[in-house]
Amino acid sequence: VSTSPQRNTPTTQRSAPTQDSVRRQNLGALLRYVHVSGATSRAELTNQLGLNRSTIGALTADLAGAGLIDEGVPQETGRAGRPSLVVRPRSSRVYGYAMSIEVDRLRAARVGLGGKVLDSRELPRPHGTAVHDTVATLAGFVRDMQHAVAAAGPADAVFVGSGIAVSRMMRHADGTVRMLPAGPPLSPDAGLGARLGLDREPVTGNVADLAALAEHTRGAATGLDNVVYLHGDAGISAGIIAGGRRVTGHGGHGGEVGHMVVNPQGRDCGCGSRGCWETEIARSVPLDRDAVLAVVEAAGSDPAARAAVRQAADWLGFGVANLVNVFNPTTVVFGGALRELYLAGAAHVRGRLSTMALPACREHVRLRTPLLGDDAPLVGAAELAFERLLRDPLETADAAA
Amino acid sequence: VSTSPQRNTPTTQRSAPTQDSVRRQNLGALLRYVHVSGATSRAELTNQLGLNRSTIGALTADLAGAGLIDEGVPQETGRAGRPSLVVRPRSSRVYGYAMSIEVDRLRAARVGLGGKVLDSRELPRPHGTAVHDTVATLAGFVRDMQHAVAAAGPADAVFVGSGIAVSRMMRHADGTVRMLPAGPPLSPDAGLGARLGLDREPVTGNVADLAALAEHTRGAATGLDNVVYLHGDAGISAGIIAGGRRVTGHGGHGGEVGHMVVNPQGRDCGCGSRGCWETEIARSVPLDRDAVLAVVEAAGSDPAARAAVRQAADWLGFGVANLVNVFNPTTVVFGGALRELYLAGAAHVRGRLSTMALPACREHVRLRTPLLGDDAPLVGAAELAFERLLRDPLETADAAA
Repeated sequence: VSTSPQRNTPTTQRSAPTQDSVRRQNLGALLRYVHVSGATSRAELTNQLGLNRSTIGALTADLAGAGLIDEGVPQETGRAGRPSLVVRPRSSRVYGYAMSIEVDRLRAARVGLGGKVLDSRELPRPHGTAVHDTVATLAGFVRDMQHAVAAAGPADAVFVGSGIAVSRMMRHADGTVRMLPAGPPLSPDAGLGARLGLDREPVTGNVADLAALAEHTRGAATGLDNVVYLHGDAGISAGIIAGGRRVTGHGGHGGEVGHMVVNPQGRDCGCGSRGCWETEIARSVPLDRDAVLAVVEAAGSDPAARAAVRQAADWLGFGVANLVNVFNPTTVVFGGALRELYLAGAAHVRGRLSTMALPACREHVRLRTPLLGDDAPLVGAAELAFERLLRDPLETADAAA
Repeated sequence: VSTSPQRNTPTTQRSAPTQDSVRRQNLGALLRYVHVSGATSRAELTNQLGLNRSTIGALTADLAGAGLIDEGVPQETGRAGRPSLVVRPRSSRVYGYAMSIEVDRLRAARVGLGGKVLDSRELPRPHGTAVHDTVATLAGFVRDMQHAVAAAGPADAVFVGSGIAVSRMMRHADGTVRMLPAGPPLSPDAGLGARLGLDREPVTGNVADLAALAEHTRGAATGLDNVVYLHGDAGISAGIIAGGRRVTGHGGHGGEVGHMVVNPQGRDCGCGSRGCWETEIARSVPLDRDAVLAVVEAAGSDPAARAAVRQAADWLGFGVANLVNVFNPTTVVFGGALRELYLAGAAHVRGRLSTMALPACREHVRLRTPLLGDDAPLVGAAELAFERLLRDPLETADAAA
């Protein structure tokens, strides 16, 4: 897509760069590099960031001064000559909180810069618990982890931000799963930070978007610019990366691919429509991880279960083909409950793809499973927690210290 | 979408900014501003670009020195005090060529910086003419316009680039329209520039993408970040803007929304699949501008035509609802042959949208028709022609002079 003009019309024009903003951007780029890649030699940073050695030296000095990185001599390289200093994120000092409110569980983790999980908590989400009612549980997790870090140190540990992945679904008391009503399910405007015992507002995103962000940053889609990540968790939502950027839509509600209608003669869906993609799949195999596993296991000996897997995988491929025609991705990742369904019915998925997607759109598509597995939403929430720091390292570190 | 982290992992890391690149970026931002907005006072530039007056002065001096803009005293403002100088693009001096290869016609225009059409040519595209065979006709257009500018001046006119919008469809000798085979229909690698009589390679894009770019830059979607532009021209392709950027997919083949399957029991489609969106619409109303107009006109008196419009509009809304669930846009624009169909059946389109799209995804959607009408692909191609100049004004102007 090197010929794609990047749009920059007056109405969305951002301020033009100044020397200050350039320095901030370079500091952010360097810190992001070591956050994602881990320990990196100065030589590699020089190379990767396209800056000269003295600039890299000045930037690392600033970041080290702010307590965000440290530098050291690398382990034996086996090469002659003076080794290049290695820059590492200070993972045990600089941390954020990542939380996820999923259909059936609540999780929180204290995560160090560099993506290292330092501490974590998890509980089932009781059926019928509204998103807002989960905040007290999450606040308990946070309090616990705050006490742990206060007791065990390090003494100079510094909290830089938090992120929360929120599912758009909830399981009702009767066991059924329903979409939440429209509107942001959890708004940082409402003093959410204070209710969580945090002195700055968290950043929120939805589970599929953040799982996609995680796989894109550290998983099966690292470095890929056009990715459709499908998350099966009661329904199907997508996290979409196009041209290297997340596609979230105007209100952050994009990616509701499960409610793409694929069968006008299909079954009524809980959303009020009929023949939605996720509903047609769930006619054969309910989109719950446990249910999928049970059917897939039974398919080894039970012809009815085998037929159910075949039908569900066929519908899965049907919707994937539509998305491939729309997005021309290189990679489709099957996450959450879709992972096992895809693995059990890959031939049917591929069959639909080859008959329904245009050759030009599908020719470079690879079908993948997640590398981060069930941790993807939480890992993605942690990326949100560090966003502000990575945009403006010194200012954020200063405000946090 | 202010909370969306912008991705910047190592593998896609671009070089970090230096002073040179900052200056280039600021020159580009200023030139782009006047290219899109026309004559602009220095005061407004200072304000819009977030740079101080002396920087704006230095940038305009550089751009004026390169012959890209001029500055003058504004017309009577009615205000007291010394008026701010007005910066204008030098539209008659700095120009590019825009071309479009549509299903039924070939067009070319000489377009001045600022988007001003200085000269234009058009011929029907003979049925069965492959894209490559249209190049000779376009080269004739270009030669003609080159002679005209050589004869009539200005003497210092300077050519900075060209863009071509290419339809993915062609009309065969028997009148049927078919998709082109996979692969880029027109590749600048093959010495295309030389065959067109141009001393630099053109930039190519597809008709729907460039029509969307045009409406986004100067039309019904100006300044909007999440837009689905639907182009009806034998089939349906989409040009998609998400988060302010074009979504084109890995090979530029994204947006093939016409081949999203909406009806598993539907009619066979020329693409090899069945029940594709565009095929279901075309069962009732063929997606040709003339055919649409004929049916829409007949609907005034003929119940059968009225039923056809209703059915086609109903299917139109069906697919729009799916795209709204996927993209959560603020704006859907109905272009090409879809314009009249939408206008004749808007109630049915809205009906489908309200029953099939999720409230969260549709609540801010506005349905619109294009402002640029049939010129959109050509206007979009002109934007491509200026892309390089707007990215690096001085270097490009220098190489062109």
